[in-house]
Amino acid sequence: MDEIDIAWAAEPELDDPVFVEGLPGVGHVGKLVSEHVVEQADSELVCRIHTEHFPPQVTVDDDSVAELAAAEIHAVDTEGRDLLVLTGDHQAQDNVGHYRLTEAFLDVAEQFGAEELYALGGVPTGELVEEHDVIGAVSDESQKERLEEEGVEFRSEEPAGGIVGSSGLLLGLGGRRGLEAACLMGETSGYLVDPKAAKAVLAVLEGMLGFDVDEEALDDRADEMEEVVSRLREMEEGPSPGDEDLRYIG
Amino acid sequence: MDEIDIAWAAEPELDDPVFVEGLPGVGHVGKLVSEHVVEQADSELVCRIHTEHFPPQVTVDDDSVAELAAAEIHAVDTEGRDLLVLTGDHQAQDNVGHYRLTEAFLDVAEQFGAEELYALGGVPTGELVEEHDVIGAVSDESQKERLEEEGVEFRSEEPAGGIVGSSGLLLGLGGRRGLEAACLMGETSGYLVDPKAAKAVLAVLEGMLGFDVDEEALDDRADEMEEVVSRLREMEEGPSPGDEDLRYIG
Amino acid sequence: MDEIDIAWAAEPELDDPVFVEGLPGVGHVGKLVSEHVVEQADSELVCRIHTEHFPPQVTVDDDSVAELAAAEIHAVDTEGRDLLVLTGDHQAQDNVGHYRLTEAFLDVAEQFGAEELYALGGVPTGELVEEHDVIGAVSDESQKERLEEEGVEFRSEEPAGGIVGSSGLLLGLGGRRGLEAACLMGETSGYLVDPKAAKAVLAVLEGMLGFDVDEEALDDRADEMEEVVSRLREMEEGPSPGDEDLRYIG
Amino acid sequence: MDEIDIAWAAEPELDDPVFVEGLPGVGHVGKLVSEHVVEQADSELVCRIHTEHFPPQVTVDDDSVAELAAAEIHAVDTEGRDLLVLTGDHQAQDNVGHYRLTEAFLDVAEQFGAEELYALGGVPTGELVEEHDVIGAVSDESQKERLEEEGVEFRSEEPAGGIVGSSGLLLGLGGRRGLEAACLMGETSGYLVDPKAAKAVLAVLEGMLGFDVDEEALDDRADEMEEVVSRLREMEEGPSPGDEDLRYIG
Repeated sequence: MDEIDIAWAAEPELDDPVFVEGLPGVGHVGKLVSEHVVEQADSELVCRIHTEHFPPQVTVDDDSVAELAAAEIHAVDTEGRDLLVLTGDHQAQDNVGHYRLTEAFLDVAEQFGAEELYALGGVPTGELVEEHDVIGAVSDESQKERLEEEGVEFRSEEPAGGIVGSSGLLLGLGGRRGLEAACLMGETSGYLVDPKAAKAVLAVLEGMLGFDVDEEALDDRADEMEEVVSRLREMEEGPSPGDEDLRYIG
Repeated sequence: MDEIDIAWAAEPELDDPVFVEGLPGVGHVGKLVSEHVVEQADSELVCRIHTEHFPPQVTVDDDSVAELAAAEIHAVDTEGRDLLVLTGDHQAQDNVGHYRLTEAFLDVAEQFGAEELYALGGVPTGELVEEHDVIGAVSDESQKERLEEEGVEFRSEEPAGGIVGSSGLLLGLGGRRGLEAACLMGETSGYLVDPKAAKAVLAVLEGMLGFDVDEEALDDRADEMEEVVSRLREMEEGPSPGDEDLRYIG
Repeated sequence: MDEIDIAWAAEPELDDPVFVEGLPGVGHVGKLVSEHVVEQADSELVCRIHTEHFPPQVTVDDDSVAELAAAEIHAVDTEGRDLLVLTGDHQAQDNVGHYRLTEAFLDVAEQFGAEELYALGGVPTGELVEEHDVIGAVSDESQKERLEEEGVEFRSEEPAGGIVGSSGLLLGLGGRRGLEAACLMGETSGYLVDPKAAKAVLAVLEGMLGFDVDEEALDDRADEMEEVVSRLREMEEGPSPGDEDLRYIG
Repeated sequence: MDEIDIAWAAEPELDDPVFVEGLPGVGHVGKLVSEHVVEQADSELVCRIHTEHFPPQVTVDDDSVAELAAAEIHAVDTEGRDLLVLTGDHQAQDNVGHYRLTEAFLDVAEQFGAEELYALGGVPTGELVEEHDVIGAVSDESQKERLEEEGVEFRSEEPAGGIVGSSGLLLGLGGRRGLEAACLMGETSGYLVDPKAAKAVLAVLEGMLGFDVDEEALDDRADEMEEVVSRLREMEEGPSPGDEDLRYIG
């Protein structure tokens, strides 16, 4: 296997596609959105990207078949723009891997002619969030106006700690290539998987790209989490939480 | 020394051999099985594999002679299939090393014409186990039926955390090469070296490959551990365990 | 992106320039000085240096534009010597990266003909410091006399733990190239960002290189920290500090 | 700088020299012995070995001159065998570095025709040691008899955890090259710098190689530590130890 190894599954014709990234991160916001879009819309696996910088690990699917750690890029056909959606269970495990893997993502994006990128994620607030604002950062200032129209907030020098991982590098390295890259970060506590923050980010993405997917699955997931949160709140006054609740905490 | 360095000891003629991996892991189940087979059956060292990705370490043998950290591949002649059995005291210590070392294992396997692989290990249950079920995962769904006949259980999306280390990568990378790879995981508490889980895994392996080795040594080891466990149980009501017991805990 | 990637912004003509390093470290002393000089004097960005050995991260500026992790080298025109000032938010994240990045800094320095280097930093005392002595270390003993005239103290075998990171390597690797490299370390508690220690280091630098920048910004920052310290002292007798204070602690 | 970079200081003519390693480790036993021999006998610096796998660090000498992290090889002229003695303040900081650096040490050893190696170190017992036995491990069983005559003890499969770091690899990689390598490990508590264990190891080395150095400096250091130990024992019944004592604990 090469350091970064792309296994192609399809080479679809795409019309000026937009690249959308949603790997695991704060509140799994980006991952929830990207997986939701791939599941709800008309999508096709384009390639699996393996790398020595992922954990040495396979996941086991529902047929007990092992799948080598991978990021996946899917072509998604929507009523709006064509999408290339990046999903996966892992970030690179080391600095060098982060840079090289993101360059590989950008290579695929450019191979299909994508000139616009959205990196999706969460921004931790440290407390339970009622209103899920979406904070933005961009590779070029000219992108801000249109994003603000969709409700994205731009706050000077926020997030204060910068943006780490693939989302950050897609902006940093994508911007160096002259691509228009924006990061959409849903405000979330940072403690729990947060489908509501995901819905807020999805709404911005839909507005920007002119598509609309069914949100029932995210709503169901949000109801589930709501219940967990209310039980956690009850328990703050009672004994410590049982193991059964912890499985929801990502 | 090269990044991965193979020191050949023999080049036996093997007939359609099966590659069996048993490096250290949960409950040392895989390691117990692979070492037991090498010791009990008619076996010959084929090669030692050294790598910069192993710990910078020698072990000291009973003659006080130092042996450089290595994985070993043994040819094992059984009444059933010919085996290539991988044993060793270490896993690679970093991600890149895991991938490269597993590729090296697969290269040796293919060099001898092996097309079938078994990765042996344990799956932790978190509690003391009475019935040692063997859980399976495969690189190709077609392998499941035959394994189920030998009593292997397939559970959707289990183990939930995937399979890490050499066992996982043998499936993931072996599958990519078109080899048939199965992982056999004995249920074990995860807290103790577990010869009983090893026996359960060995039984499946013997059934699949048509051989039968004396199990007395594993039984003795199991009796020893039984005693340790019963003492640990007693001690739960008494004072904390003495150091003499801890040497059994791997 | 290359392992180390230099994006040039300008190629100024400099007259026998001096290279000054101030990356993050103990008390952020070096960083405070180098950024202060760049801001107060007539300066021009020469290049941004990116590397896979920096964190996989962008910072977000006041316009919400993402900037890829970088070190920056600025040409600074003073009434004394011409300066090349290295600033940045990060040190390399691994050993190999530290060595390679420092070699890259030295390459740029030599490209502009710099033969003299100052690495700026802090030395932790473990207690609040009233008098901010500046401790020195050099690549060549002949440099000491002139530095002592500017008030630098040389103490046998201090700092006891050596000098780590870019500052240390600029001396070690710079000395190997035959450059004159000195490290100026302001005594500081090690617990807080320390603008007073920065002022002490700046004073030495100004004396050595014959320039003089307005210090108001550092004074303001010092007053701010003074207040924090006095509040911390009060709180030692009262309840634990609120979050609002912690933002000052670097 | 190359990944491993050798700066030559001298190229002495040596007669069938023996290579002796004493880098930092358990109780600093090996380091104490190697530095003591270099200081007490007629020695000459042969080379400094720098590497990206050492910490990014300089030490500061008594003249405040910075010295890049290095291992040093000294030629030592004794009334017995000629020695090449390896000293230094660091081990490599990562697995790959350990292997590559040890290969570099062996290259230098072989360049001078050394065919015999001694790796010096300590073996931790976990309790204060009165009798400082010296435990041995060898690359070839034939070496044991002569070492036993000098009082070295060989214990089956000890140390149980193997030998890690440069000492271990000198045996493992040296043995692969056909060199005779022995590891001499002085028993020591593992908690303190142990000049007495160093004396025990030195005595074996002197006996093997036919030389004899003044031991006063080690005796003084041992007396110093004796005092520390007795104070520590007193304190076990009194209040916790002051900082002044901790500087002795390596």
